[in-house]
Amino acid sequence: MAIVIIRQDGKIDAWKKALKERNPSIEVYSYLEEHPKESITMALIWKHPKGTLAQYPNLKCIASAGAGVDYIFDDSTAPTNTPITRVVDPYLASDMSEHVLAVILAELKNFNTYKLQQVDHNWNPKEYRRIQDVTIGIMGLGELGALTAKNLVKYGFQVQGWSRSKKEIEGVQAFAGQEQLDPFLNSTEFLVCLLPLTPQTEGILNRSLFLKLPKNAYIINVARGGHMVDEDLLHALDSGHLSGASLDVYHEEPLPGDHPFWQHPKIFMTPHYASVSDTHSVVPQILENYERLGNNRELLNKVNRTKGY
Amino acid sequence: MAIVIIRQDGKIDAWKKALKERNPSIEVYSYLEEHPKESITMALIWKHPKGTLAQYPNLKCIASAGAGVDYIFDDSTAPTNTPITRVVDPYLASDMSEHVLAVILAELKNFNTYKLQQVDHNWNPKEYRRIQDVTIGIMGLGELGALTAKNLVKYGFQVQGWSRSKKEIEGVQAFAGQEQLDPFLNSTEFLVCLLPLTPQTEGILNRSLFLKLPKNAYIINVARGGHMVDEDLLHALDSGHLSGASLDVYHEEPLPGDHPFWQHPKIFMTPHYASVSDTHSVVPQILENYERLGNNRELLNKVNRTKGY
Repeated sequence: MAIVIIRQDGKIDAWKKALKERNPSIEVYSYLEEHPKESITMALIWKHPKGTLAQYPNLKCIASAGAGVDYIFDDSTAPTNTPITRVVDPYLASDMSEHVLAVILAELKNFNTYKLQQVDHNWNPKEYRRIQDVTIGIMGLGELGALTAKNLVKYGFQVQGWSRSKKEIEGVQAFAGQEQLDPFLNSTEFLVCLLPLTPQTEGILNRSLFLKLPKNAYIINVARGGHMVDEDLLHALDSGHLSGASLDVYHEEPLPGDHPFWQHPKIFMTPHYASVSDTHSVVPQILENYERLGNNRELLNKVNRTKGY
Repeated sequence: MAIVIIRQDGKIDAWKKALKERNPSIEVYSYLEEHPKESITMALIWKHPKGTLAQYPNLKCIASAGAGVDYIFDDSTAPTNTPITRVVDPYLASDMSEHVLAVILAELKNFNTYKLQQVDHNWNPKEYRRIQDVTIGIMGLGELGALTAKNLVKYGFQVQGWSRSKKEIEGVQAFAGQEQLDPFLNSTEFLVCLLPLTPQTEGILNRSLFLKLPKNAYIINVARGGHMVDEDLLHALDSGHLSGASLDVYHEEPLPGDHPFWQHPKIFMTPHYASVSDTHSVVPQILENYERLGNNRELLNKVNRTKGY
């Protein structure tokens, strides 16, 4: 048995090294080097090139190196019966919560406006808003959404959450299911999307949803580019209905240089870096599952293929 | 007895209206209109033109409409025996605390870098830092500094404070006096200046202080422009010793268009708007002191002229 690492962000060697450090006897390959395909039992992947998973006849686990797994379902050549696992990294949730807090505060205090004014040598104070006066609505209350909601309550925001089935979190007003989506949206001033990307949630951030938010609402998408209908966002910003948006994820990444988001004065962009798995916290989970694979024991953090997360 | 309002920011009418709304019988004038100088017993001021305070023979209270009063001592023609009061506004402190938190998080998450990259259509992720790993040092533990320190502790930062005399705040490591300044600085990664501006603190943010901070420290000045030696800051940024600075206050405001701060990639500028007094919370304090003046009772929130705050 052996592990192959498949990713395209230049980090294969770092992951190999991190695995070897904790278990020097382990057999690990980069998918780019010569390696024995039939020995591979685990593929440790992050946004693999489509088709690369199909070449391992004895693959027993597809281990996503992140919390999201939607990119695996996008590859029609990926094995359909091999178990998929994902990372449950405590830092993934707290890093996300810090990113969302940072984005909201920067908007309350008009930092993006000021940064653009600074470029123009323009001194123009603008009224700010206060934490206590703002209602945040979180869509998706998985590990990341739930911790973000909890922390925003601790920081003094008014927080409400929407999820498929009702989730009780102290201090967070709970909404659930399609029939409670409208009242949730009607009272949300900052909408944070932390949903998994599934056929049900694809394109959920669209014109009809935006119109249910109060005027001057602000959108934060830190889930997946596929949740957003880009043209609808641009329209809702330009019509003045939405006051702005902060985006970390896009349909194509890196975002092509000619995409209108880059230059939009009401959009603040970060390069899919709100929260990233680091090798320190992830490697032990991978090795634990690799050992379980060897012993034919149940894998941890298995993805439900029907739900898609 | 009557009140004169002296300020140059175009807000005199708003303050007049706010005072009249709470007490319609009150006599209030703008210093720009014709008014009976000898009836004036209280001057409600914010950054008055020098010389304007000297024209009221019966002035009994100089009421600063903000927390700072240093600009009054800068006017050598201002009466030297008239009591000075300042505003103690609970929102002033919480607004400041939210500003400081917003600035720190934006820096941890590289938002200023990303905003400039966005202008250039440049996708370039950069490692972020976490709240739990960062030590904040607050200079000045008055109302604003103390609440900011308390809140940063609540949010999970490591916090230490430095003040003239030792102040105990739960969770905040206390440093005091000249002899503890160096150890305080040596262990501070984000330095927040919230000191009053006095002859002792003028120019305190200078080259020698910067060199006592660890490499890559970050400066946040939200007190007064007079605390900063501008050339020393530029030098410490350009030499690579400091990683950046967030400034809300300047020697001259608005900052002249040719000042090098505007274009410096490591400086984030806000236009002296971290925390502003609003009429709602301030007017009751002003009217309370005005009534006390009429009844010859002790004024609230009196400034100690020797200390300068």
